[in-house]
Amino acid sequence: MKIALAQINLTVGDFEFNFHKITSCIKKAKTKNADIIIFPESALCGYPPEDLVLKDSFILTNKKYLNKLKPYTQGILCIIGAITKNSGKTFNSAAVIYNQKILNIYHKIVLPNYGVFDEKRHFSPGDSLYIYEWKNMRFSVNICEDIWQENSITKQLRENAVDLLINISASPFSLSKLEDRRKILSKRAKQANAFIAYCNLVGGQDEIVFDGASKIISPQGKILAMAPQFQEKLLFFEIEKGKKNKKNLSIRISPIKQIYQAIILGLRDYIRKNRFEKVVIGISGGIDSALVTALAVKAIGKDKVYGLIMPSQYTSSGTLKDALKLCRNLGIKHYTLPIKDIFNAYKQTLGKTILLGKQDLTEQNIQARIRGNILMAFSNKHNCLVLNTGNKSEISLGYCTLYGDMVGGFGLLKDVYKTTVYKLAKFINKISTPALIPKSIIRRPPSAELKPGQKDEDDLSISYVVLDKILKLYIEENLSLKEIIQKGMPARLARKIILKVDRNEYKRRQSPPGVKITNMAFGKDRRMPITNKFTGK
Amino acid sequence: MKIALAQINLTVGDFEFNFHKITSCIKKAKTKNADIIIFPESALCGYPPEDLVLKDSFILTNKKYLNKLKPYTQGILCIIGAITKNSGKTFNSAAVIYNQKILNIYHKIVLPNYGVFDEKRHFSPGDSLYIYEWKNMRFSVNICEDIWQENSITKQLRENAVDLLINISASPFSLSKLEDRRKILSKRAKQANAFIAYCNLVGGQDEIVFDGASKIISPQGKILAMAPQFQEKLLFFEIEKGKKNKKNLSIRISPIKQIYQAIILGLRDYIRKNRFEKVVIGISGGIDSALVTALAVKAIGKDKVYGLIMPSQYTSSGTLKDALKLCRNLGIKHYTLPIKDIFNAYKQTLGKTILLGKQDLTEQNIQARIRGNILMAFSNKHNCLVLNTGNKSEISLGYCTLYGDMVGGFGLLKDVYKTTVYKLAKFINKISTPALIPKSIIRRPPSAELKPGQKDEDDLSISYVVLDKILKLYIEENLSLKEIIQKGMPARLARKIILKVDRNEYKRRQSPPGVKITNMAFGKDRRMPITNKFTGK
Repeated sequence: MKIALAQINLTVGDFEFNFHKITSCIKKAKTKNADIIIFPESALCGYPPEDLVLKDSFILTNKKYLNKLKPYTQGILCIIGAITKNSGKTFNSAAVIYNQKILNIYHKIVLPNYGVFDEKRHFSPGDSLYIYEWKNMRFSVNICEDIWQENSITKQLRENAVDLLINISASPFSLSKLEDRRKILSKRAKQANAFIAYCNLVGGQDEIVFDGASKIISPQGKILAMAPQFQEKLLFFEIEKGKKNKKNLSIRISPIKQIYQAIILGLRDYIRKNRFEKVVIGISGGIDSALVTALAVKAIGKDKVYGLIMPSQYTSSGTLKDALKLCRNLGIKHYTLPIKDIFNAYKQTLGKTILLGKQDLTEQNIQARIRGNILMAFSNKHNCLVLNTGNKSEISLGYCTLYGDMVGGFGLLKDVYKTTVYKLAKFINKISTPALIPKSIIRRPPSAELKPGQKDEDDLSISYVVLDKILKLYIEENLSLKEIIQKGMPARLARKIILKVDRNEYKRRQSPPGVKITNMAFGKDRRMPITNKFTGK
Repeated sequence: MKIALAQINLTVGDFEFNFHKITSCIKKAKTKNADIIIFPESALCGYPPEDLVLKDSFILTNKKYLNKLKPYTQGILCIIGAITKNSGKTFNSAAVIYNQKILNIYHKIVLPNYGVFDEKRHFSPGDSLYIYEWKNMRFSVNICEDIWQENSITKQLRENAVDLLINISASPFSLSKLEDRRKILSKRAKQANAFIAYCNLVGGQDEIVFDGASKIISPQGKILAMAPQFQEKLLFFEIEKGKKNKKNLSIRISPIKQIYQAIILGLRDYIRKNRFEKVVIGISGGIDSALVTALAVKAIGKDKVYGLIMPSQYTSSGTLKDALKLCRNLGIKHYTLPIKDIFNAYKQTLGKTILLGKQDLTEQNIQARIRGNILMAFSNKHNCLVLNTGNKSEISLGYCTLYGDMVGGFGLLKDVYKTTVYKLAKFINKISTPALIPKSIIRRPPSAELKPGQKDEDDLSISYVVLDKILKLYIEENLSLKEIIQKGMPARLARKIILKVDRNEYKRRQSPPGVKITNMAFGKDRRMPITNKFTGK
């Protein structure tokens, strides 16, 4: 039986676009004589549709396109995700269509409602398995989370002696996912003693990126075939009942390469799916903006990336030189716009009322916000998306200026710790000849350069290495101060950092979306109250 | 049996503060010889704790304070909300404590997971009712949503012939809630033929305000006693089994008064619970900022409210006069800071590169962002919370400047349509002598005054009356374009408006939180994707 896995990049709400992509895959699969073609979860409408599901018109459009699909299924069994409604209940479904007829509509049984998922908000759970015998193969169809839980489904599948388990998914990327999926699929294949055909979505949607990596697993739990991560692929594989296949693909991909690819795809899709063409970035001469600019050039090409260099009176000549060197290395159009005169105008206007006494954080923030204003002005005039350059370490602490360096429509490093920023920069230099990011940028101690001699690690009185360790324990592992200290972290600093993370929730609430990379990203993944006096003591 | 309903204002995560408030209520209730004291849902930790519930240390702290409460319950039955954990499952619970012993811990059965609620994300459902006989009364305890659904609980209560149904709640305010609750409580009382003691939380928490209005309902479904909305109250009521009480309190309160009180309480609590003391507002001479300033003065007093008047070269002398008059009427400290010089500095710096060609929206946005920067500078120097003045109509359409007039920590009018803004302004003038908001402000056609002769309703080419009708149908009732046209709205305008609402989700995602007023507020209540091509055609 020849299976086609259609790992495709769909757009939420763009039924017409999705439908054309789906039917062109069916046509291709037919020319290759595939027996079955499998599409991802919610393929017709894109995933996650969020509260669009609460609109009747949205459900009706799903139904309309599901019916439009029927004529294309002559001679090929098509399994595809769609949202359906029945007796007032909305389901996350998989339609099984063959020879122009809908044979079955399976409803997802296990609805994820944690992390970035809200499926219990949107769907009712299904309650029955679907098993179908066709061309001498017994197969079942289920959806994403259905296969992740050890439950009665696992047992029933074994008892029903299926040959093939089809799982359609929209499983978002995070660093552990590739291996997590391999483990779970391998385990389920062995438990059911069946092949698994796993078709995952690919593409970016706001905060999340689907990484694909669709695969065929043998009843022995081995990977027989796999589509690449972060790319579209129509993958064909012929399975033979009873035949033992010794193949076992290795799927090790370095974490840094995965992060790199996730950001590139996330950015590319955010731009394309939101009708932008170009981006603009404030280039400081520091590592974060250098990395973001290099990533943007990799994602959409140098002709669509603009750099604004906006030195203040505290910008060192070395930093300025590095900023210019970076732009030249990358070959992007750039403008140098010193902010001193504008800053002086603020000082003039506010001098007698607001800016009294000694300079403090206020004056630093005014400068950061002048830069934000200039970036947005450029964005307005040229219809460019402003890319935010904040990294996870500084966003965690609120070491960033709301409406200043926090401006932007999309944040490439929102879920990338500062220590990983350096690794990514080195990775980009390794895969490019000549190196794109000047070494002096990578070497210089990070600084906001908004006051004389400022250095991040002095301001924070902690090294980024220790900081990132504490942040991971607090944010990703949800440990308390006590538990973090027990892991060997310095008590006084850990206490200070936790307090900063908690107190700066209000800033993050107004920050642009960015690609989820870790197992706990800011945004939908982590829903903390702003008003919160819990200190964990 | 004498019942005390403790309708109190608690803070999320502030166990020590909440505990002291709770125990002082118990002490008072004892002096009044109450038999039972009832506290709101999640009283120990505040509601909603959101993802704090995922921290083990948070659950343990709940447990610790629950145990600390025992000694206070000598001679008084205490029913109180707490988060508990049992065999790895987390529950939203009601503890029944008497004579220093925990008699029972009931687990909420029906978990709301719609609108602003995420309870299936955080809790496992309970599975059994709790019925207890005490002092010749059979009573049951349940929690908020448990009573809203017609289900097996209703049936079991009737069969078990309880005399008193105790419901502890954290039911957020929206305009229909007072009447919705009356209806449902009245119906359940009659179904169970039992008294209902309903204790609701009061106070603001980020986007939501709990309005209290705790009550005692007779078995005939009549309101025997009710605590006021939006205020703390320890309400006492003696119920007698079998005694028919003919009382039936009327609870009609005008919608505008409810909105007014909700905003006042929401603002007051956001300020207090987030360690602010003062607020600053950009005062334009228009109706939105006038209303916000008047509301702020009502909420925290004129000494804690600062106004910044920031005229541009397009500000008319009438507008400027009105802004000054408003500040004098309200008696607040204010500064006039013309933005012309700063704007000229931007034009100078950006003239040769960015601001080429004809003036357009870019120049308007630069000015709005200069004002944003000045407000934030004031906030930084004086540790003031910046209040956002955007109303729901303009936020819906994206008729506002990101990082410009959209700055702020809290938005008073985020869920208030422009037509309601006028009603609220008139209401404030009615309850104040002399009138606070100058009539000329209420009368002048709204304008951003960022270009010569600009008027909102020209820019939008629609009157606010029609606009607000279309927005309500689209946002609150989730109707499609077709359905909106069928309701008699102009087709071309409705299409344009819907498109604007959809396209501006990215702006709202970066907007400050504001008080939920309607049945569908922006924020947690309405979770739409930014990347979304569904047009509903």
